[in-house]
Amino acid sequence: MRTEFRTKRKIEFADTDMAGIVHFTRFFVFMETAEHEFLRSLGTNVVTEWDGHKIGWPRVAASCEYLSPLRYEDEVDILLWVSRKGTKSLTCQFRFTHNEKDVARGQLTTVCCITNPGEKMRSIPIPDFIISQIKTE
Amino acid sequence: MRTEFRTKRKIEFADTDMAGIVHFTRFFVFMETAEHEFLRSLGTNVVTEWDGHKIGWPRVAASCEYLSPLRYEDEVDILLWVSRKGTKSLTCQFRFTHNEKDVARGQLTTVCCITNPGEKMRSIPIPDFIISQIKTE
Amino acid sequence: MRTEFRTKRKIEFADTDMAGIVHFTRFFVFMETAEHEFLRSLGTNVVTEWDGHKIGWPRVAASCEYLSPLRYEDEVDILLWVSRKGTKSLTCQFRFTHNEKDVARGQLTTVCCITNPGEKMRSIPIPDFIISQIKTE
Amino acid sequence: MRTEFRTKRKIEFADTDMAGIVHFTRFFVFMETAEHEFLRSLGTNVVTEWDGHKIGWPRVAASCEYLSPLRYEDEVDILLWVSRKGTKSLTCQFRFTHNEKDVARGQLTTVCCITNPGEKMRSIPIPDFIISQIKTE
Repeated sequence: MRTEFRTKRKIEFADTDMAGIVHFTRFFVFMETAEHEFLRSLGTNVVTEWDGHKIGWPRVAASCEYLSPLRYEDEVDILLWVSRKGTKSLTCQFRFTHNEKDVARGQLTTVCCITNPGEKMRSIPIPDFIISQIKTE
Repeated sequence: MRTEFRTKRKIEFADTDMAGIVHFTRFFVFMETAEHEFLRSLGTNVVTEWDGHKIGWPRVAASCEYLSPLRYEDEVDILLWVSRKGTKSLTCQFRFTHNEKDVARGQLTTVCCITNPGEKMRSIPIPDFIISQIKTE
Repeated sequence: MRTEFRTKRKIEFADTDMAGIVHFTRFFVFMETAEHEFLRSLGTNVVTEWDGHKIGWPRVAASCEYLSPLRYEDEVDILLWVSRKGTKSLTCQFRFTHNEKDVARGQLTTVCCITNPGEKMRSIPIPDFIISQIKTE
Repeated sequence: MRTEFRTKRKIEFADTDMAGIVHFTRFFVFMETAEHEFLRSLGTNVVTEWDGHKIGWPRVAASCEYLSPLRYEDEVDILLWVSRKGTKSLTCQFRFTHNEKDVARGQLTTVCCITNPGEKMRSIPIPDFIISQIKTE
């Protein structure tokens, strides 16, 4: 069974734009924060140390489809699952629902990297203790 | 020859995050602002009146691929072109370059809608005076 | 005894800047969201209808003093109280603490206004059902 | 004669909120970016090296008074001047005007600090080559 993670978020005034709805860029912040909560649920973190190195997860791709607008004070349910485990990368899918209606679907692809200060960033295989906890089906 | 539009932007401190680079969500703001400048160059606007109605352009999809990070004070060149003209929708492509190096590629798809206050928003064919100015090849 | 309201917030990655700390502008978003939660706790809302009019609370002043930086994943405690009730305006004070250490102090002053669309915005006395619930000492 | 610096900014869609005006927090971003342009005009930078140390300018206070709303596409003129030169701190004043009408007044106080990585941040006297270029009257 695939690994899933659920979280919620309440829309704030600063999330809205003059069209009276949540600005489309905010969904990417919501995805990022959900993804970070997911990493914490696995006992790791988007900014961490491992084996004497600083580890980070820079993004290589992000996308979102908008189905229905969200408004101030809406509570949005966010479902995350990992659709693809590469050796060095993860692709997470996101489904946003409000009152059980689909409002958006998104995707983030990130690469596991050593990000030691003063060194050129380089991708590495995702540590086993993380990858072993994630099921894609 | 396809319609193209070029603009520039200087990275601000508030665009950055604790990884020391431009936060990935900011590229979507940069795309939006470039798209709005493009609409103005066609003599229209993302928020306008036409034929007695309020016209808006809600987004249905947004995506970005990240090739190389941008940093504080970088000047980024943004090239926009329309890759697809539907009857009611436009898809814009974006190429971000810094010192002639590709840093990101993005895409926004928007739908032309009547957005009169108090009415349900509905999509309409893109007005002729706009669509006639755009060439996709 | 003065009316107080308490809330919490966890710092997100998108709140940070390249100095590795929470960007100073984010404290104003945190104040706003706390203020809106406070209004909801009084049975009203920053965007509401009352007596046939749309009511809003535009800001006339905002300030913040920064005592100690906040970082990614910090949980910040926010204490709000009303330091001044004018006939038409409210001034809220905010104290931000992290692990019981003061990190910032802020203040927002807002004016109660009729914000009917198509009309010029005008200030009005704060409705009694709101003002009667607020004690400043 | 006091040192002054002038810049301009065009309001973007992402600067607005559901009240149809520029969100109050954005004025602080506008102040910061103007301040950084001012530092560059003095031949320095908000993030720089000097005498073998990394120099930064953390904020200790920020405030803004709002006189009139700004809207999408408005061009705002920003006037900056230094109202107070301390040994270690600078206080900048900002006046925002739109079509020669005052729309907001703000203030930022920053402290000159050594921000070497791995060391505790500490305030230092502002380097002479900066302070000598600034007149407060």
